[in-house]
Amino acid sequence: MGFLKQAALSAISELMINKIPFNRHIGLKFHSISDEESIIQFDMKPELVGNYFHGILHGGVISASLDMVGGIMAAVGVLNDNPATHLNKLKEKLTKLSTIDMRVDYLRPGKGEAFYAKARLLRTGAKIAVVRMELVNEQELQIAVATGTYMVG
Amino acid sequence: MGFLKQAALSAISELMINKIPFNRHIGLKFHSISDEESIIQFDMKPELVGNYFHGILHGGVISASLDMVGGIMAAVGVLNDNPATHLNKLKEKLTKLSTIDMRVDYLRPGKGEAFYAKARLLRTGAKIAVVRMELVNEQELQIAVATGTYMVG
Amino acid sequence: MGFLKQAALSAISELMINKIPFNRHIGLKFHSISDEESIIQFDMKPELVGNYFHGILHGGVISASLDMVGGIMAAVGVLNDNPATHLNKLKEKLTKLSTIDMRVDYLRPGKGEAFYAKARLLRTGAKIAVVRMELVNEQELQIAVATGTYMVG
Amino acid sequence: MGFLKQAALSAISELMINKIPFNRHIGLKFHSISDEESIIQFDMKPELVGNYFHGILHGGVISASLDMVGGIMAAVGVLNDNPATHLNKLKEKLTKLSTIDMRVDYLRPGKGEAFYAKARLLRTGAKIAVVRMELVNEQELQIAVATGTYMVG
Repeated sequence: MGFLKQAALSAISELMINKIPFNRHIGLKFHSISDEESIIQFDMKPELVGNYFHGILHGGVISASLDMVGGIMAAVGVLNDNPATHLNKLKEKLTKLSTIDMRVDYLRPGKGEAFYAKARLLRTGAKIAVVRMELVNEQELQIAVATGTYMVG
Repeated sequence: MGFLKQAALSAISELMINKIPFNRHIGLKFHSISDEESIIQFDMKPELVGNYFHGILHGGVISASLDMVGGIMAAVGVLNDNPATHLNKLKEKLTKLSTIDMRVDYLRPGKGEAFYAKARLLRTGAKIAVVRMELVNEQELQIAVATGTYMVG
Repeated sequence: MGFLKQAALSAISELMINKIPFNRHIGLKFHSISDEESIIQFDMKPELVGNYFHGILHGGVISASLDMVGGIMAAVGVLNDNPATHLNKLKEKLTKLSTIDMRVDYLRPGKGEAFYAKARLLRTGAKIAVVRMELVNEQELQIAVATGTYMVG
Repeated sequence: MGFLKQAALSAISELMINKIPFNRHIGLKFHSISDEESIIQFDMKPELVGNYFHGILHGGVISASLDMVGGIMAAVGVLNDNPATHLNKLKEKLTKLSTIDMRVDYLRPGKGEAFYAKARLLRTGAKIAVVRMELVNEQELQIAVATGTYMVG
């Protein structure tokens, strides 16, 4: 990925993440982006607990972070498929980007100090993108995986 | 559903919803419960917006509310399958209840003033429950549907 | 649904079903079609058994029939959204129709003498259709449900 | 994986595949098995075509092969979690093994001469196993991916 493209995508990702109040409540932060993988990060805090007996992440936090990073990776697919598109046109395309459906598999209790939501493209095209996501903690333990279909056209 | 069972389930549901900080942030409120259907409710507010261009619900809010109401309906299934179980035993079972997987289909933009997440049982047994959920707004417009598999054993 | 449209859709459905050798092996037959619901039917026979201990339907037969009836219902959506389209244009669109993803929930053992795969539209648009399907036996016992996303654009 | 376990699993897999008429119709053949991955194989033939315009695999063939190989991998999980179990007991467990739900993503047209359905365990336990599957052709082109939840308890 060229430097300019990387810079553009990083800027767009930070915008996508930070302008949304719900993402700020979770504490989602941009981590890294490339043609192969996008990663966002957040830390454990009491507001994110879903099971107060076990002190583990709320399922809604898990699916929200996976949906978000999947959307960012779909945006990478849009950029790759429209390399000569102007930034304004691209921004317009990105404001229309939306999740069609998503399956989440909750594999292990959401325990940890820091969490990383990662996404990779499975399929990209003029109309839809299919993305695979996973959530791991700071020890790379896999907490959840997901597959999402996004409208990109 | 008998009055005592209804009262027990309402109490447990309110507990499940209100003890969790993330649910309070969303503003999830218990609405109603029966053998056929559980409903929880929340109101639109700026903190729940996911697309600031269009002023619509964050996908994470939609999936969190659907997952929650699905879990409550799975708990109804547990109670139905264990009618003579003591409340303490039931509480213990409910603290172990967890989502195995969930598919969400985002059908329409999450616009509205008040939202209702509803759940119905598809299958219930000693080990798992399968639940179907939907999110509608105050005009009964269907915003999302979901299917979840829950561990109940 | 007007008589002409009904006739066109019935003809197209029968074509979609009967021209495909795999559907003939299963024994899929067109049953009925309307704006609300499409139904295809097949009978139990030894070739369709998946568990020889219990004499129940193979999961692949279940998902194949659900995918097929979902595709037919997506075609109804295409026709509804393109009312003035010529038959040749419509046929061309239908040859491009494809399944993007599908979730199947296997609720009960596939026991019975005759099976009905039914589909209803959840969402339809210029690019994709989302369809909900179910498989019931001759006693209306629900054996499986599914949700599929189809490319229609 | 020890030699005896490998032999036992190979035998069980071949039994699971070959005793089922529907699998024979597709032409499913046991390929290989290990703690990490199970693979089954089948060849293209006219009976498996789903789109006679494009000569590609029927979606039902794809999902049937993915479901089958996922079930075999779930059986590996059962064996790993029950190392001292007698073969008869294991066989009994395996006859109860069933698919709870499965999501399939159809990524590319099913073109090719030979197809390999592969499965890896995501999660295994006393009651359920979660398995990830993929279908590739003889050139390792990914045609579909899937995630399945299996009852193993």
